[in-house]
Amino acid sequence: MTVAFPAHQNERMGFTDQPSVPPRGRRPAAEGTSGSPRPTMAMVAARVGVSKQTVHYALNSPDRLSPTTLRRVLKAVDELGYRPNQAARSLRTQSPRAVGFRLLPTTEGQSGGVWASYLYELSVAAHRADHAVYCHPAATDEEEIQVIQEIFSTNTVDCFVITSTQDHDPRITFLRERGIPFVSFGRPWGHPMSDTWWVDVDGAAGMEQAVDHLAECGHRRIAYLGWDGPSGFGDDRESGWRRAMRSHGFSTRDLAARGPDEISTGRELAGRLLDRKTPPTGFVCVSDTIAIGALRACRERGLAAGRDVGVVGFDDSVGAHFVDPGLTSLAQPLELVARHTMRLLLDRLKDPNAKAEQVLLRPTLVVRESTVPL
Amino acid sequence: MTVAFPAHQNERMGFTDQPSVPPRGRRPAAEGTSGSPRPTMAMVAARVGVSKQTVHYALNSPDRLSPTTLRRVLKAVDELGYRPNQAARSLRTQSPRAVGFRLLPTTEGQSGGVWASYLYELSVAAHRADHAVYCHPAATDEEEIQVIQEIFSTNTVDCFVITSTQDHDPRITFLRERGIPFVSFGRPWGHPMSDTWWVDVDGAAGMEQAVDHLAECGHRRIAYLGWDGPSGFGDDRESGWRRAMRSHGFSTRDLAARGPDEISTGRELAGRLLDRKTPPTGFVCVSDTIAIGALRACRERGLAAGRDVGVVGFDDSVGAHFVDPGLTSLAQPLELVARHTMRLLLDRLKDPNAKAEQVLLRPTLVVRESTVPL
Repeated sequence: MTVAFPAHQNERMGFTDQPSVPPRGRRPAAEGTSGSPRPTMAMVAARVGVSKQTVHYALNSPDRLSPTTLRRVLKAVDELGYRPNQAARSLRTQSPRAVGFRLLPTTEGQSGGVWASYLYELSVAAHRADHAVYCHPAATDEEEIQVIQEIFSTNTVDCFVITSTQDHDPRITFLRERGIPFVSFGRPWGHPMSDTWWVDVDGAAGMEQAVDHLAECGHRRIAYLGWDGPSGFGDDRESGWRRAMRSHGFSTRDLAARGPDEISTGRELAGRLLDRKTPPTGFVCVSDTIAIGALRACRERGLAAGRDVGVVGFDDSVGAHFVDPGLTSLAQPLELVARHTMRLLLDRLKDPNAKAEQVLLRPTLVVRESTVPL
Repeated sequence: MTVAFPAHQNERMGFTDQPSVPPRGRRPAAEGTSGSPRPTMAMVAARVGVSKQTVHYALNSPDRLSPTTLRRVLKAVDELGYRPNQAARSLRTQSPRAVGFRLLPTTEGQSGGVWASYLYELSVAAHRADHAVYCHPAATDEEEIQVIQEIFSTNTVDCFVITSTQDHDPRITFLRERGIPFVSFGRPWGHPMSDTWWVDVDGAAGMEQAVDHLAECGHRRIAYLGWDGPSGFGDDRESGWRRAMRSHGFSTRDLAARGPDEISTGRELAGRLLDRKTPPTGFVCVSDTIAIGALRACRERGLAAGRDVGVVGFDDSVGAHFVDPGLTSLAQPLELVARHTMRLLLDRLKDPNAKAEQVLLRPTLVVRESTVPL
């Protein structure tokens, strides 16, 4: 079970209710609207035989009209499938009701598009709150900052979601300095944790679950395969491994190894550990990509995953169920992350002076054959 | 090499030039703009000591100003990082300069997010043409139609890209009836091919490449593993297999099998074929997902892929390089698809009465260990 639990002082257990906004775009237009693709206010007015002002009142100040007129106008609005012009509305309200989201080029390390699944969930949550998601490409954080600046200054979006937060993330510094509303999926590593709005998944708690699971399966020498270079996510996950190992009374000495987020990394690092005199029998890995490499190293040495060794990944990506044996992995509760992200964005937009809020969620261990044979 | 080649009468070989529009959002604002997140026209005017009308002229009718004034205003625009309000601009031009794109929930059959890679490339192409990409979620085609109706009628986007076209796709019928501009990634199966604007990848030609490759590796009995149910893409790919088999003089009898797009399908269908008296030694598969299942069936029977059997998938997805042995697969030229899509959208928007244009592109065979041992 995934449970939302409080970060800092925010008491918020669970999150099961829907945002209290009407669904968007659920009312199909009636028949007979083909021909003209975009019905206008004038067409509604002409159909009922009233002025455009009357149609405007019906949609914005219904109490100004008699019940009969109101009913007639709304019927025509419905039949024609008329919707007020979003650009005009944005200009009036000064809010484009859109969230900016950066797209990344695909790399091996993504293990099958976790960001794509998150984007889908974010678009569902945004749609429920009558917001659009505007996607912009950026290959680097610096490019993302330039694009954010551009599209925010043109009032294309009201706010941003940033993902994959890095240590001392320059995007967070920039967004805070400019006062641009944002919520990050990922903690502001290296910045004060309670100053910005964020939603994150507790990687350390996930790694503890992974170690507990391997210990239950009888493993004692459990290695950690991580990322090299500075990484808030990586450090967090590694700390969970250390904490859990300590609480079980297992040694961590010489059992941590690190490299780039590639299959070859997992294969090499795990291979080197397995070739020792007293090799580890368990591996918890910072990503599915590295875990898939570790599985290969095991197979190359004739070790059966799930019986001789146990391997756990992180992200429950497409890769995790594509490999054979299937990879036990920590799943991030992406739907919940997206819903909290949207809720925080709306809160932040409603009150720019509100105290920043944070949500930390637990990942779920999905057990497959890499730790427990079928 | 991927080569654009003409569909119908359109002579268009290759597509290497960039669209002739300025890049969007590449100019960073100067220092000193923090504090106020969104500079206004009034701020620019105040800085230079001119009227807002003068600033407006500088940006829209520069010939109305003296060169000195123009230079002073543009300098201030630059320094403040001012950009005209997009909502106001949309209202004036009646064009939101945005493309609608539907997001799908993640399923196993996606083999690692081909649509996500395509969306990234589309956002790059759109950005170059100064357009935004608006993402909307839809679990079904019917839901997509409802959402398209909603966001088009509110003038949130000018046009749509639809993907994964089905046989007699109801979205195409709907969009054509309403006169809503769109380009499909995927042919309008079951509709007249030259009536709508589309970009597609030639699956049949891809399958021919796959069969040619397996024949070169010495395979003669080459099976086809496809999707069940009606599918334009599926039928197209299967026809390529049949054509290539015929041209090599190989029999296709009892060598085609079909099922849902799941790993288990490939495993079962390939397993059944391998257990025959005279089993096939080659498999061309409609998707990587099914091919990965076929690889499992081979391994379970002690057959070494690349040596005893050859397996080819379609999509060159994350799964294809995550499995061991790596899967030979047909890569779709997604960047090129995205650039053509955007070009066609712009042509269609410029001239609603223009003759519909189509682009068919070749996939590329990426050879890995599942057909040729390392």
